[in-house]
Amino acid sequence: MNDAVSARVPIAAIRSLIEDSLERAGLPREGAAVCGRLMGEADLTGADAHGVFRLPQYVRRLKAGGFNPKPNITVNRSAPATALVDGDNAMGHLVMSRAAETAIAIARESGVSWVGVRRSNHAGPAGLYAEMPAAAGMIGIYAAVANANHMAVWGGADPLLGTNPLAIGVPSGEGPMVLDMATTVVSYGTVKNYALQGKPLQPGWMVNTATGADIVDAKRAAEGLLLPIGGYKGSGLAVMLGLIAGPLNRAVFGRDVVDFNADDASETNTGHFMLALDIARFLPLDDYKAEVDRHVRELKASKRLPGVDEIRMPGERRLACRDDRLRNGVPLAPALVAQLDKLAAELGIKPLAMR
Amino acid sequence: MNDAVSARVPIAAIRSLIEDSLERAGLPREGAAVCGRLMGEADLTGADAHGVFRLPQYVRRLKAGGFNPKPNITVNRSAPATALVDGDNAMGHLVMSRAAETAIAIARESGVSWVGVRRSNHAGPAGLYAEMPAAAGMIGIYAAVANANHMAVWGGADPLLGTNPLAIGVPSGEGPMVLDMATTVVSYGTVKNYALQGKPLQPGWMVNTATGADIVDAKRAAEGLLLPIGGYKGSGLAVMLGLIAGPLNRAVFGRDVVDFNADDASETNTGHFMLALDIARFLPLDDYKAEVDRHVRELKASKRLPGVDEIRMPGERRLACRDDRLRNGVPLAPALVAQLDKLAAELGIKPLAMR
Repeated sequence: MNDAVSARVPIAAIRSLIEDSLERAGLPREGAAVCGRLMGEADLTGADAHGVFRLPQYVRRLKAGGFNPKPNITVNRSAPATALVDGDNAMGHLVMSRAAETAIAIARESGVSWVGVRRSNHAGPAGLYAEMPAAAGMIGIYAAVANANHMAVWGGADPLLGTNPLAIGVPSGEGPMVLDMATTVVSYGTVKNYALQGKPLQPGWMVNTATGADIVDAKRAAEGLLLPIGGYKGSGLAVMLGLIAGPLNRAVFGRDVVDFNADDASETNTGHFMLALDIARFLPLDDYKAEVDRHVRELKASKRLPGVDEIRMPGERRLACRDDRLRNGVPLAPALVAQLDKLAAELGIKPLAMR
Repeated sequence: MNDAVSARVPIAAIRSLIEDSLERAGLPREGAAVCGRLMGEADLTGADAHGVFRLPQYVRRLKAGGFNPKPNITVNRSAPATALVDGDNAMGHLVMSRAAETAIAIARESGVSWVGVRRSNHAGPAGLYAEMPAAAGMIGIYAAVANANHMAVWGGADPLLGTNPLAIGVPSGEGPMVLDMATTVVSYGTVKNYALQGKPLQPGWMVNTATGADIVDAKRAAEGLLLPIGGYKGSGLAVMLGLIAGPLNRAVFGRDVVDFNADDASETNTGHFMLALDIARFLPLDDYKAEVDRHVRELKASKRLPGVDEIRMPGERRLACRDDRLRNGVPLAPALVAQLDKLAAELGIKPLAMR
């Protein structure tokens, strides 16, 4: 998306479009509202590939029977500090909100909690779910098996791994500080964006699986796969997170992953996990926040490399983006607005501009 | 260390040298035996910078009062599923073994456990502690604040971050499968090794903090710092793991880290954390192992990039190394053997060759 030619749309308009669309596509109002809130958070925080951009796909999937619009999401408390959530193929946002609430509630009792999730779906940016415990005075850790395989295992040429993201949230005096990272160097969305803009990819982003060479021409992305951060390390991290978010919950991983961009109807059986850790069991929350704040100050004030104008902490750009977009609206590319207008017409609801 | 000119030393000889040395330096026999076992594991599994290589430094530190040889390690069960271990400035191996046992025992009751650790010390390779829950049929996760700062925060030029390692272990049919990764692209040990061998560093490994350029001449390593995997991602990961392993346990992080290579006497107040998750609370352990094995087979048998002769899983090289070294001995460079002989002479104990 190119900000220069994008209109700024108020977040309230985006959220109401999401809610009405999902409701028309079969979701009860309450569930649609949760999705509107969380997808709107993605738009606010700059996770542009995870917000309203996904709405046409989600509606298509609801209509194709790929999501269960009236799910019975169940929580099985499998041990004093663990639970397994079965999403009954609901939209991922609904499943993961339930999982996050469960994780926070159990951690309040037990100090720490681990919630595995199965039969879920794409749930938007990882940071959303690591942020929830952090907002509740806890450490939050979240990971997932991604819904499409755009990476090979290190040395491999078959698309058997996803970008399997990891997010970690800690509270600070300025609010939750959230790291949200894919295990690939860049996302597939970034590659598509470079292709649109005719910009060359950087070496180390993608490998041509036939030749083993870096792909720099973004238009040739289809000939290759994304590369992991740190070579075998990022590949290993994607494997381990995947084995814990997937098979531990009897959810998919590897060759079993359903590419939800290519298939609107099949159940994806997406797996996630999340952890919440209650800081107050280790030291008073305010003491911890004060220490985080001190370290952040020291890191931010440290000497910079030549040409670097500011040192940023994990999630800092995310928060600045949220402030700006809450005030000034979310930039949406004209092509996306056109797509959303078409969707609104098909569903017989008001377009963005009338909200 | 250069294998070509290295002698192969039986692991039993290495372990007995470690035990006798640490005992002479003031450690009770039982503690020395635990350190010998764990440092020996580092040597066996190819973590050459964490095994007997560290012995002279540890002995120096014991003599300088930097370690407490007769510690009172305490475990405070802070919640049903959490504990905080105070290492009383013991050798890190002793503190972390206790923490790992605690984590496994609590997870057996609660399904998951989180054990924070403070007032510990350098404990050798991260993989050791993620492996322990995996050997007990659990998922293990371990991280630490490293004992020296060789990295800057992303964009920075001050050494405020360590290689802060992350290790994850899962059980498989072939035994624990362990990912052990630093958040830097390479370790400082690798850089020193390249300098010894006169080999150039690869771009992306180290940055010259005055110019911002890559350092390729390993002899100029002192002019720069290690770079994180995935740029801002690895830096963010080092920060978040550090804030959870350090300040959450009232242990050091960032500017407060004591460089234990330069200072033998000051208490380091090293922080770690570990998690154990009992697989049986999610599905039968054998079912999980079978799924891990199936995915590993599929990944290993997948199509390879040109020139790649084998796809390796996390920890595979580690296990192969262990098999080889258990049978054929651990290769020790002549310079290291000389150093250990000198140490043995100083302590009045038998040298390696007589064990």
